[in-house]
Amino acid sequence: MVKDRVIYHELYTPEDAIAKIMKYTSINPLGVETVELPLAYGRVLAEDIYAPIDVPHFDRSTVDGYAVRAEDTFGADELFPLELRVIGSISPGVGNLPVISRGEAVEISTGAPIPSGANAVVMVEYTKRAEDRVIVYKSVVPGENIVNTGSDISAGELVLRRCTTLREREIGVLAALGIRSVKVYRKPRVAVISTGDELVEPGGSIGLGMIYDINSYTIASSLASIGADPHIIGIVRDDLDSMLRVISEAEREYDVVIVSGGTSAGPTDIVYRVFREMGPPGVVVHGLKVKPGKPTVIALSRSGKLLVGLPGYPSSALMIFNIIVKPLLSRMLCLSYYEPKVKARLSVRVEGARGRRGLYPVILVDTGEYIAAYPQSAESGAIKVLAYSDGFIVVPESVEYIPEGEIVDVTLFSSEYRPADLYIVGSHDIGIDRLIPHLGLNVKVINVGSLEGLKSASRGEADIAGVHLVDDETGEYNVPFIVKYNVKDIVVVRGYMREQGLIVARGNPHRVSGIEDIASKRLRLVNRNRGSGTRFLLDMKLKELSRKIGVAFEDFIARIEGYYYEVRTHTAVAAAIAQGKADIGLGIRVAAEIYNLDFISLGWENYDFVIPKSKLQKEPVRRFLKALKSSELRVELENLKGYRVLSETGEVIWES
Amino acid sequence: MVKDRVIYHELYTPEDAIAKIMKYTSINPLGVETVELPLAYGRVLAEDIYAPIDVPHFDRSTVDGYAVRAEDTFGADELFPLELRVIGSISPGVGNLPVISRGEAVEISTGAPIPSGANAVVMVEYTKRAEDRVIVYKSVVPGENIVNTGSDISAGELVLRRCTTLREREIGVLAALGIRSVKVYRKPRVAVISTGDELVEPGGSIGLGMIYDINSYTIASSLASIGADPHIIGIVRDDLDSMLRVISEAEREYDVVIVSGGTSAGPTDIVYRVFREMGPPGVVVHGLKVKPGKPTVIALSRSGKLLVGLPGYPSSALMIFNIIVKPLLSRMLCLSYYEPKVKARLSVRVEGARGRRGLYPVILVDTGEYIAAYPQSAESGAIKVLAYSDGFIVVPESVEYIPEGEIVDVTLFSSEYRPADLYIVGSHDIGIDRLIPHLGLNVKVINVGSLEGLKSASRGEADIAGVHLVDDETGEYNVPFIVKYNVKDIVVVRGYMREQGLIVARGNPHRVSGIEDIASKRLRLVNRNRGSGTRFLLDMKLKELSRKIGVAFEDFIARIEGYYYEVRTHTAVAAAIAQGKADIGLGIRVAAEIYNLDFISLGWENYDFVIPKSKLQKEPVRRFLKALKSSELRVELENLKGYRVLSETGEVIWES
Repeated sequence: MVKDRVIYHELYTPEDAIAKIMKYTSINPLGVETVELPLAYGRVLAEDIYAPIDVPHFDRSTVDGYAVRAEDTFGADELFPLELRVIGSISPGVGNLPVISRGEAVEISTGAPIPSGANAVVMVEYTKRAEDRVIVYKSVVPGENIVNTGSDISAGELVLRRCTTLREREIGVLAALGIRSVKVYRKPRVAVISTGDELVEPGGSIGLGMIYDINSYTIASSLASIGADPHIIGIVRDDLDSMLRVISEAEREYDVVIVSGGTSAGPTDIVYRVFREMGPPGVVVHGLKVKPGKPTVIALSRSGKLLVGLPGYPSSALMIFNIIVKPLLSRMLCLSYYEPKVKARLSVRVEGARGRRGLYPVILVDTGEYIAAYPQSAESGAIKVLAYSDGFIVVPESVEYIPEGEIVDVTLFSSEYRPADLYIVGSHDIGIDRLIPHLGLNVKVINVGSLEGLKSASRGEADIAGVHLVDDETGEYNVPFIVKYNVKDIVVVRGYMREQGLIVARGNPHRVSGIEDIASKRLRLVNRNRGSGTRFLLDMKLKELSRKIGVAFEDFIARIEGYYYEVRTHTAVAAAIAQGKADIGLGIRVAAEIYNLDFISLGWENYDFVIPKSKLQKEPVRRFLKALKSSELRVELENLKGYRVLSETGEVIWES
Repeated sequence: MVKDRVIYHELYTPEDAIAKIMKYTSINPLGVETVELPLAYGRVLAEDIYAPIDVPHFDRSTVDGYAVRAEDTFGADELFPLELRVIGSISPGVGNLPVISRGEAVEISTGAPIPSGANAVVMVEYTKRAEDRVIVYKSVVPGENIVNTGSDISAGELVLRRCTTLREREIGVLAALGIRSVKVYRKPRVAVISTGDELVEPGGSIGLGMIYDINSYTIASSLASIGADPHIIGIVRDDLDSMLRVISEAEREYDVVIVSGGTSAGPTDIVYRVFREMGPPGVVVHGLKVKPGKPTVIALSRSGKLLVGLPGYPSSALMIFNIIVKPLLSRMLCLSYYEPKVKARLSVRVEGARGRRGLYPVILVDTGEYIAAYPQSAESGAIKVLAYSDGFIVVPESVEYIPEGEIVDVTLFSSEYRPADLYIVGSHDIGIDRLIPHLGLNVKVINVGSLEGLKSASRGEADIAGVHLVDDETGEYNVPFIVKYNVKDIVVVRGYMREQGLIVARGNPHRVSGIEDIASKRLRLVNRNRGSGTRFLLDMKLKELSRKIGVAFEDFIARIEGYYYEVRTHTAVAAAIAQGKADIGLGIRVAAEIYNLDFISLGWENYDFVIPKSKLQKEPVRRFLKALKSSELRVELENLKGYRVLSETGEVIWES
C-alpha cells in the first residue's frame, strides 16, 4: 500500500538549500588538533604561521669555492689572475668560523656559512689551488654567490595562512622553519548509512530484486577524498524503528550523518520522518529542484548536527554529494569550495529537465584544439556511465534544451582530470578491448555506436572510430556508406571481420534457421539502439524481408514484439536472451559464446577504423595502427570466436 | 681541502636520463596485493575487471506506480481513464513476484523488480487508487519507466581496465558488481634519506651554519601524493662509511632509495661514490642538463633497485623529483606519467640557463581572460618561492631568453591547481596580511614591489595593487607618480598611512638622527630591491642629500657601503640590522618593532591600492573594499605600530 506519502512542499535550488541551512547554523570547523609534520600531508592549517627564524638563518655560499673580500678580486681575469692566502676551510654545519682580512680567502662549500670579513664567493671553477694560496681568475662583486640571511623567509613574516591545505611544498616551508608539529582542523567524522530492504553488501549473494550497496562505498570514498573521516555504518532496513535507532546513535557519535536511499516519495520513505523526529529544527530542506537529486533531505538535529539524506540511486547520490555535501563539509574544513571546470563543445543536443536544473554526465574528448563533451544518457541509477564520465553539465531550470555545438561549462568530477592519450569513439567491440592493453596508453573508449563514431571522426574529435556500417543498397560495409554520406578528410583503415548472426537460447528451442523466423514464428526480439551498426544490419535484413512479402517496412516491424526493446551492446542482447526476456536478437558470435547461447551465422562483416586525416601523425594513433599489424595481436584476435584478421588489417583502404 | 672532486662526464636531459635507466632495467610494477573495497581508494587496479553479473540484474521500475501491460493502457487519458485490477504490491528487495494478466496491475516501488507479464510502469502521479482497482489517467508504451537487466553493465563486459586508479566512481562500479576485494599493485616502498653535516631535524635547535632538514619531509609528502609508501630514514652524516652503511641497509629493505643532498661536486660529495660501490651497474646517470638540478645521480644496485641522489637544495630536489622520480615511480604503479599544464602569458622576460634547460617557478594570475605567469627569482634553495608558486616554466637549452608577453606552457606542481578568488600584487604590507583573514576568500598575494604591482594592474592582471610610490619631484605619493607614468583605466583607492624611518640597532649605537648619517658616519646600509616603494623613497632622500652637498648621485651612492646589498621585505631589512650585518636601513616602523630595534621616523607615507577599472565589479574586490571601510579592520590596523587609517580609507581618490 502506498501510505503516508511524502509531499515536497517546496523544491530548493542547491544554492538556496545551502543558504537555508546557513540560516539555522553557521557551519564552521569542528576543532583543532596538533599533528607531527610527517602526518600533516593533506591536512588544513588551523593557525597562521609566522616565521620563528630567518631562512636561511645565516649568509650562505651558493657554490663551492673561496670566500673572499670582493674588493680583493677586482681586476682578476684569465690573463691577470690574483693570488690570495687561504687561511682555512668551512664546510656546511661547521660553526667555528675564521675571520678574513685583506688578501685572504677561505675555502668554502656550497651551503656553508660566510665567514666575517668576506662578502663574496669565487666559484672553484675560476680558481687554482697551490698549497696555502689560491689563484683567482675572475673578479666577483659584493654579494656574489651568497644568499643573505632571511632572503628566503624573514623572521616574523607571515608565511602560511590559516585554512591552507598542507601539501609537499607547504610542509617544506614548515620544515625549513624548524616547525615539527602544527595545528590543523579536526577532520569531520561522518557516519555513512545506506537504507533499503533490497541492499546486500558487496561480497554477499543476491537474489531476484536485491542489489549491492554501492552508496556506502562511493560516499565514503568521496568523503575521504575531501579530507573528511568516513565511517561506514552499513545497511539499515526500511523500518522506522531500526532507522530511528541507527540514525540517532550515529548522530550522537559522529559530526555528520549521511543516509542514502529511502528518500524518494514512495513506500520506503522513512528517512524524512526520522530526520523530522530528530529536530528541532529537524528537516530544513526537503526536495531539490535538480534532476537527478530531487529526493534529497537536509536536516539539523537538536544538537545542531548536520543530517543529509541522499537519493538512493548511486549516480544521483554522488551528484548531490558533490553539489550539496562537499560545499558544507568544505566549510567544516575551512576550505572555500571550488568546482574545477572546463569549457567544452557539446557533441549532441541536450534536453532540459522541465523546470528543474538538469545535471548530465559527459565524457570529454580533448581534440588538442578544443574539448568536446559527449553527454551520456544516464538512465536512472547507472553507475557505469558515471564512472566513465569526466564531469557534468548543467542545464538551467528555464532552458528547454542546449543545441549541439554550443560551448558549455563542464564541472569536473575530479580536479585530477587528465586528457586521454587516445580517444576511440564508436561501435563497441571486444577486439578493441583486447588490443588496448598492448598499447601502454591512457585510452578512452566511448561506445556510442558506429554512426556517432563516424560523425565524431568527421568532426575531428575521435582519434579512431570503430565502425561497421552496412550500405543497405549494396550490402557492403563502411566505404560505400561513407561515400554515400560524403564524409570528408578521413581515411578508412581495414580492421577485421566479425561474424554476425542470430543469438537464440541454448539448444535453439524455436528452431530458428534465419531472419524470417522472427516474423513467421512471432519471436520476441531484443533490438540494438539506433545508430549502431548491428541495428543498421538488422533493419536492412528486415527491409529485404518486408519487400519480399510485400508489406510496408513500418507495418512489418510494428508486428514484431520487442522491436523497440533496445539495448546498447552485443552482450546485453545475449543477456536478454539468456534471461528469457527475449527469444532472439542480432549480435556477434563472441557475445553468444560468453552467455553459452546458440548462434545462427548470417555471415561476416567488416569492422573497420575511420581516422581523421588530422590525427594520422599523432603518436598514439600510429601506435594503434602498428599494434593492428603486429603478429602478437593477430593471434589474440584470431582466438576470439567469430573474429578474422585480414592481410590488409591495419592498412589504409580508402581516403576522402 | 677540495679532494676527490667528482667530474660530470656527461650531462643528460631528463628524457635521456630516463631512457638510459630503461636500457638497464624495465621498471615495472613490483607485485600485486588484494585489498578490501573500503581500503581501495587511490590504489591502482592490477587486474581487468569483467562484470560477473548484470547491473541491474533484473528489470527494475524507475518510479513509484503500477506495473502494467502497456497494451492495457492504450487510449487512457484524463478524460477517458481506464481501470485495472490491482493484484498485489512489490517493494524493493521482495523476491516473490506475482504474474499479471490482461486487465491487471501491481503496485510497485522505485527500484522494485518488474513482475512477469508487465512491460511498463504507470507513474503513481497518473493514477488514482480505489480499493483493489486503480484508475489510470495516462497510457504508457512498452518499456516505459523500466530499466532493463544489464542496461547499466552487462555480465561479461570489460568494465575497468588494469592500471586504473580507483576513485569513488570506480569503487562504485566494483560495489555494483558485488566485488568486495580487488587486486591492486603493491605500493613501492621508498626509503628517504637526507645527507649533510649541517642538517638538524625540525623541532631541534640550530646553531650557526646549521639548517633544518626539509627534503625528508617534502620528498616523503611527494611520494605519498603519487601513491608510493615513503619511509623517512633520517639524516646521515657526510662520511663514506656511515653513508655506505645506511644506504646499503635501505637498499636491502626498500624498493627504491632516494637520497638528497651531498651530490654537488664539492667536498660533501659522497653519495656518488656510495652509489658507485653498489653496482654493477651502479651510477648510470650523473648530472642533468637542467638548472636547477645538475647534481643529480641515478643508479641501479646489483639487485636492480633504483637509487636516486637528488640535489640538496629543497627547491631543486622537488623539481628533480617531479621530472625524474615521478615518471619512474609512475611505471612502478602502472600509471602513465602526466604533467598537468596550462598556457600562460609571461609577465617579465626570462633568461635561459646557458646550455642547460632552465626550470623557473612561476606564480599564476588568472585574469579571467588569460592566465599570466609571474616568474619568481628562485634564489638557490628558496623554499618559500617554491611554496608560493603554482608551477614552473621550461626554457629550452638552446634558448637565450623568452621575452615578456610570450605565451608559455606552465607545468603545474599539482593537478589540484585552482585560481585564487583575489590577486593582490605589489608592495609587501603587513596591513594586507591582517586584512586577508577577514575576507573569507582564497587570496593570492604576490610581493613584487610597488612598481611591478602598478604594471600588473595596468595590464589588468592584478585585481588590487598595493603601492607606495613617491614622486621624486613633489615628494607626494602615488597619484602624482601614476599621472607622470600615464597609467590608464585604473582607479586609486585610498589605503592607509605607514610610518617610514631609519631602522638601527637597539639603543641607536651610532646615534643616528637622520638620513645624512648614512654618509657622514660611513654606516653599512641594507637596501631594498629596485622597484620597491621604499627604494624609491630612499633614492629620493639620497638624491636630495647629494644635491645639497654638491656631489653627483652616482658618486654619492658608490661611497655607501651596502648600497647594493638588497633585500626584498621590510622585515628582511630589520633582520639584517638585528644580526649586525648592516648598521642602518629604511623601513616601516612595525618591522623595527618585530625585531626590537630602534626607529628614527622620517615621516608618513600613503600606502594605497590601484585597481583596474575592469575589476571594480568583481565580487572579491568589492568585498576587499568593504572590509577596508569596516570599523573592525580600522581597529586592527590602528593597533599596528606606525599605521594610521584615514577617513577616506577605502574611497576612490582618483581615476584615469
